[in-house]
Amino acid sequence: MSLRTLLSGMIQQVEGAYAVMLMGYDCIAIDEVHLGRPGFDVQMMTVEYATVIKEIQRTVEVVGAGDMEEITITTKQSCMILRVINEELFAAFVLSRDGNVGKARYLLRANALTMIKAIE
Amino acid sequence: MSLRTLLSGMIQQVEGAYAVMLMGYDCIAIDEVHLGRPGFDVQMMTVEYATVIKEIQRTVEVVGAGDMEEITITTKQSCMILRVINEELFAAFVLSRDGNVGKARYLLRANALTMIKAIE
Repeated sequence: MSLRTLLSGMIQQVEGAYAVMLMGYDCIAIDEVHLGRPGFDVQMMTVEYATVIKEIQRTVEVVGAGDMEEITITTKQSCMILRVINEELFAAFVLSRDGNVGKARYLLRANALTMIKAIE
Repeated sequence: MSLRTLLSGMIQQVEGAYAVMLMGYDCIAIDEVHLGRPGFDVQMMTVEYATVIKEIQRTVEVVGAGDMEEITITTKQSCMILRVINEELFAAFVLSRDGNVGKARYLLRANALTMIKAIE
């Protein structure tokens, strides 16, 4: 299965999802699928958060709290889930505030290996 | 009710909780209550994450995704929930990886106003 097909399948399963993507820590998306009108700049949001994820990872290492797995950021309008896939990649879901966060979180976790295989 | 009493009551209700605190964005805790042995430096973790929260808040403003409400950071050993209380304060719960995250999240939300009143 191509990464695009996989991501498209994932976004269709999550109510209120605006975008799903696989990204490198250099903030460049390997691929991404968008849906609906979020009313804010999803692209810019992801790139900015990718910078933050690196900061947090550094902190987690220094503190010794084990490898980072996931970050969820909730604002008045949106929810974003960032999931570490490996040392080079992370996957993200952007949803509306009332979207199905639990389902999005599950799909990122369940499809981590499949995403890697899709780009090999 | 004093803030200390309130925080103590909160931490007792959450299985797997290591710490609960009310903090300023200057990374100084108004008050905090600890429990158990997390095996990592909770204090340092919170201070570092407080810096990150400011970064994220700036991003959220720039992107226009509405005011920030909550950040959850999950690592292999721990889970930390940071909840914005107002422009000056945020509250945080630090838990073990298998702690009751849902309950901690609920308590931070439900006690936001009570925490502010406790320090007035």
